[in-house]
Amino acid sequence: MPNMCYLVGTAGSGKTILTSSLQTYLITKGASLTTVNLDPAVKHIPYQADVDIRDYIDYDQLIDEHNLGPNGAMIAAVDLVADHINDLRDDIEELGESSSLVLVDTPGQMELFAYRRSGTEITSSFPLDTSFIAFLFDSTLVSHIGGFLSVSLLATSVQLRLNLPIAHVITKIDLLKPHQVEDVLAWRENPYDAIEEDLIGMTREFSLQVGQIIEGLGQIPLIPVSALSGEGLELLSAQISRVFEAGEDWSI
Amino acid sequence: MPNMCYLVGTAGSGKTILTSSLQTYLITKGASLTTVNLDPAVKHIPYQADVDIRDYIDYDQLIDEHNLGPNGAMIAAVDLVADHINDLRDDIEELGESSSLVLVDTPGQMELFAYRRSGTEITSSFPLDTSFIAFLFDSTLVSHIGGFLSVSLLATSVQLRLNLPIAHVITKIDLLKPHQVEDVLAWRENPYDAIEEDLIGMTREFSLQVGQIIEGLGQIPLIPVSALSGEGLELLSAQISRVFEAGEDWSI
Repeated sequence: MPNMCYLVGTAGSGKTILTSSLQTYLITKGASLTTVNLDPAVKHIPYQADVDIRDYIDYDQLIDEHNLGPNGAMIAAVDLVADHINDLRDDIEELGESSSLVLVDTPGQMELFAYRRSGTEITSSFPLDTSFIAFLFDSTLVSHIGGFLSVSLLATSVQLRLNLPIAHVITKIDLLKPHQVEDVLAWRENPYDAIEEDLIGMTREFSLQVGQIIEGLGQIPLIPVSALSGEGLELLSAQISRVFEAGEDWSI
Repeated sequence: MPNMCYLVGTAGSGKTILTSSLQTYLITKGASLTTVNLDPAVKHIPYQADVDIRDYIDYDQLIDEHNLGPNGAMIAAVDLVADHINDLRDDIEELGESSSLVLVDTPGQMELFAYRRSGTEITSSFPLDTSFIAFLFDSTLVSHIGGFLSVSLLATSVQLRLNLPIAHVITKIDLLKPHQVEDVLAWRENPYDAIEEDLIGMTREFSLQVGQIIEGLGQIPLIPVSALSGEGLELLSAQISRVFEAGEDWSI
């Protein structure tokens, strides 16, 4: 089975645009890549999807036939992804055999994938030792300590739910000033000072517990990227390469 | 300002149906209640909304006018909620003055509310010392230890993000056997035995860290309810009453 890299993150965190930039970057570097779209409700994707769940699930038809509102239709569409695991496996195996990496863009609304059945059913249907999550930290959320702690816990929650190795990726760093990116990287090493300064609403006990969890994440890579400028794609690519020990063909 | 209770939880966890059952229960108990719908994309709600965000945001018009796909439209609609804080405040203050409680049903897709701007902008615009989150644990997610730990971390992430006191509510317990509910309640006290047994994929270090966080949540109430049978509504109502010290009129 090929190496699978799932891009997961909250709505608007930049999964689809990062899939696109990473695809271009990796292909330029000579990687043989299979790119998968798992979002049945997306209208336009800016990359070439080699495998596309929309070939199996018609979101508009679902709305029309079942008279669903937008919330219900979105839930139903993403839940249906789990019913097409065999189709996806066949498609991915066929293309993935000659690929060093399968890049998987997950549904726009993360919770429908991660906290309902389709996420775990998809990820557990591929070998766990060749699968990996890139969890996207939306830079607009994590540029203050409370948001950073909150998204770190969210990433850990998703890691537990999908039960896969993970890397954390700060996206859209073109929206931050360089010192803000440095702050976020520093909080991963030592969150306590920032917690003391900023989190007035937290009790000391609670903040220490959360700080310990964050410190415990220390060994998980935290990679700042901009899909817009391309900054950080080299590091992210190297990290994926390292996880899969894919050799040097598309690593830095 | 009135006491605010926000029902928050992942898509499908039962926010809307619990809002409905709780409304009926509390009114029967003699509570003076204001019920708020904050989901601009919901089609049908089974309760009487005294304040309704759909009076200010027209989801269908948003799709038509901006030519948005379903993901984009959902994000835009929930983001727009933040632009109507003054309208909501006025409506809630007017009705809430004679209410002992304002029950707030939040958008279907939790991440759009909790991990984008509208959630924090709404909650921070009301006094924090009279606000409270009821975080819904979907029983279909938390009936195994991995799911329970994952949702516990998710709840903690949301608590940090919204920075409010919280109670955890296990919903739809009519879908579980009584011993399963007891298991979940026991895991809150001592998650370690279950972690040792079931979480093969977790390293020992990681599992201990997560266990510590769960143990640290010990003082947060964990209330099993069924909106269908009404089981647990008395306990939940008592908890809300206790948080706000609202007297005995609608507490048990």
